Amino acid sequence: MKKLSFFAFLFLFHLLSFGQNRPKYIFFMIGDGMGLNQVNLTEIYLAAQEDRNTVFPLVFSTFPHATFATSYSLSHGVTDSAAGGTALAVGKKTKNGVLSMDSTGSESYTSIAYAAKKAGMKVGITTSVSIDHATPASFYANQSSRSKYYEIGQDILKSGFDFFAGSGFLSPTKNAKKEEVPSLFPQFEKAGYQLAYGLEGYQNLKDKGKKTILMNSKGTDPESLKFAIDQQKGDLNLREITDAAITSLTKDNDKGFFLMVEGGKIDWSSHANDATTTIREVLDFNEAVKSAYAFYLKHPEETLIIVTADHETGGIAVGNGGSRLNTKLLSHQKVSLGELSKEVSALRLAGREVSWQEMKDLLSKKLGLFGAVKVSQEEEDLLFKIYEKSFVKHEDETIKSLYATDEKLAATAIQLLNKAGSIAWASNNHSAAYIPVFAIGAGAQSFSHKMENVDIPKKVAAAAGLDF
Amino acid sequence: MKKLSFFAFLFLFHLLSFGQNRPKYIFFMIGDGMGLNQVNLTEIYLAAQEDRNTVFPLVFSTFPHATFATSYSLSHGVTDSAAGGTALAVGKKTKNGVLSMDSTGSESYTSIAYAAKKAGMKVGITTSVSIDHATPASFYANQSSRSKYYEIGQDILKSGFDFFAGSGFLSPTKNAKKEEVPSLFPQFEKAGYQLAYGLEGYQNLKDKGKKTILMNSKGTDPESLKFAIDQQKGDLNLREITDAAITSLTKDNDKGFFLMVEGGKIDWSSHANDATTTIREVLDFNEAVKSAYAFYLKHPEETLIIVTADHETGGIAVGNGGSRLNTKLLSHQKVSLGELSKEVSALRLAGREVSWQEMKDLLSKKLGLFGAVKVSQEEEDLLFKIYEKSFVKHEDETIKSLYATDEKLAATAIQLLNKAGSIAWASNNHSAAYIPVFAIGAGAQSFSHKMENVDIPKKVAAAAGLDF
Repeated sequence: MKKLSFFAFLFLFHLLSFGQNRPKYIFFMIGDGMGLNQVNLTEIYLAAQEDRNTVFPLVFSTFPHATFATSYSLSHGVTDSAAGGTALAVGKKTKNGVLSMDSTGSESYTSIAYAAKKAGMKVGITTSVSIDHATPASFYANQSSRSKYYEIGQDILKSGFDFFAGSGFLSPTKNAKKEEVPSLFPQFEKAGYQLAYGLEGYQNLKDKGKKTILMNSKGTDPESLKFAIDQQKGDLNLREITDAAITSLTKDNDKGFFLMVEGGKIDWSSHANDATTTIREVLDFNEAVKSAYAFYLKHPEETLIIVTADHETGGIAVGNGGSRLNTKLLSHQKVSLGELSKEVSALRLAGREVSWQEMKDLLSKKLGLFGAVKVSQEEEDLLFKIYEKSFVKHEDETIKSLYATDEKLAATAIQLLNKAGSIAWASNNHSAAYIPVFAIGAGAQSFSHKMENVDIPKKVAAAAGLDF
Repeated sequence: MKKLSFFAFLFLFHLLSFGQNRPKYIFFMIGDGMGLNQVNLTEIYLAAQEDRNTVFPLVFSTFPHATFATSYSLSHGVTDSAAGGTALAVGKKTKNGVLSMDSTGSESYTSIAYAAKKAGMKVGITTSVSIDHATPASFYANQSSRSKYYEIGQDILKSGFDFFAGSGFLSPTKNAKKEEVPSLFPQFEKAGYQLAYGLEGYQNLKDKGKKTILMNSKGTDPESLKFAIDQQKGDLNLREITDAAITSLTKDNDKGFFLMVEGGKIDWSSHANDATTTIREVLDFNEAVKSAYAFYLKHPEETLIIVTADHETGGIAVGNGGSRLNTKLLSHQKVSLGELSKEVSALRLAGREVSWQEMKDLLSKKLGLFGAVKVSQEEEDLLFKIYEKSFVKHEDETIKSLYATDEKLAATAIQLLNKAGSIAWASNNHSAAYIPVFAIGAGAQSFSHKMENVDIPKKVAAAAGLDF
């Protein structure tokens, strides 16, 4: 009897702590470009807001399982989001630029989302960028190039998945050959999707359990939701999208779901080497994870949440020389580089003389420079020279990164703020850094060791008993 | 019966996969300055040697448990090796610079090594740098300052630990007040330690089970073993030290052991922003881990190996812009920055004219520059200017990092190689990056989630049932 109790205890311990149940509800959450250092920086920044030399964890960094994975693609040491998304979606490496196909674009791979659908689960694919962007597309599309946006959009039709959400579509009426073609939207409707624009549009849907494509309100930028730092009340955000997805996928459904949620713009702000905007994006993504976590708390034995990334962007480092970190200074930044850039552009094109003092006032108001954030004479000279070139001589005005063309003055000012805030960046592109993997719930225990990115969907599928 | 078998199966599974045994043999292995990116780079570099776009794992990166931990100290966002070592040794955060005491230096903390000793285990403290350096010292000394080398050395006497090894002692006859004081060595001998110099000295010991302090051969640098990249046949290395420690700690001993092994110079080469030397140091450390792993394979149910770090150094990034990594180019480097610097110095002080071509030939031979590693005209101009300044005008010749003063020409040449090899560095100092934690064996399963550095020794102690 004593022996039996011991076994029984072990069994319980086992169940409780290692969650051997099969997950019925799967959240596959991807912070695009969210390396370990982006997570770490956000934790440090939160504590620094309260002058604490510690870290305030995010909801996902407290998960009982955390490890890391490689991210290289089949073709490159540094992956892009297409090959990175493909690895996470189908469990196979491919060439940069390719979506869930082999490197030659001749064989299609089946994503875990399709495996979930086949097993009877509802499937949701959501993002803070466009629905046809590389990461979400990896889960439902098979295309030889990530830039075939129209064709990617059409793959929604073959997917039959239940819920899509994001800012919109990049090329709904023009195919990869740049030909005018029938709009995607009537095709979606014909295939049974109801189209919702904005949160209000979603709320007005009569039957939220029907197949749905949720986009941002008409008239907004289809490329992406606004950066969290730039969002105003009423702007659609990733947590609202996640909540809508949960609502739709659980309506009249006892077969469970697979929900992919991408925080897509951690990558964008990291490409721009804009640390504050990156932190705010990680926090915005964390809000979406909070919704998943709230769901987990209601269904702890049947839910699996994976939080990972497709790659790291920017080669960000926290600490650029001194032992004292000044990340608190980053909080003086009030807008993204993109928005600041727009303001600088507007001044430059205002058709009137803009004094250096006026420019300094703008940088002070928006970034804290020349105020809480000290600017050395050398740094001011650097900014002034750019101002002189672009505002007086009208040359050499902008610099281009992957997702933006920004005013040099704005980008340089943010560089100075980043430097003051103890941040260094290796480049404007992705790095080969390991990606973090956090897991909680049924099946989470298999995320215990360093792995390849392709192992992640395999382990999720194995935990859920999916044919994958 | 069926039910019982099921329980029995679970029990076995539990034992096998999660190792609930108490470890009798504990390896606590610390790569000083070894962040996740240092590990990742080494894996990528190994594969690149064979033109493979993948990773070749290290022995420890295949361990069944891998996660990461914060490294900040009580006083600073970026820890030094004293506070970092203290966190790992005693499970408490302290101020940068302090060794296993509270921030004011009034209260001593008890390290896990003392707890192991108290439990009857033998204890070994080993490193590739000096035995009185911050990381090893954290495990046996209690001092208000890491630079009190003589006083740290004296703490060996109070420790009563069984085996010490490293390059030597930094201040054996001069105390913190710079006063001449009785040499440490006779004190060690009086306390029952046999002193061994070099591997041969160790091999000649009649009773290897007696208390031992193993140092590098007489006449070698007491500050540290040579960098792996600079070692010649016969030079003492960390794997030999680890093997010696295992030999001594297991001789006539059935009570188990606690062995700390530090790969101390990953940090040094990272301070110097010297990527190739860093990779070679990680590989050298990996060799030491191989010895521990071989021991584990003989005693899998009684051994725990932890491989971690005290902090990351340099904010290294793998990938500095392009998607194609060129880490293979790093293999053209044949000596550390320090050795290259010595050669440049020797030329500079040779008392004869040294032509630019002669300098280029040296950089070609030692780093591959101007050969396999392309140098742009702009980069050559940069090098030439430094050459001109230091070889012709004799000014502005050296730059200082934490552990070295190097020829500017050598440091700049290595910067160019690093850049060509897809590497970027954030600074010459430590960063706040997470530290990796790899674990295998009895008790390894508790290293499953993101943690604080102070949790690491607590979990080891809990696994081993130590009073800590």
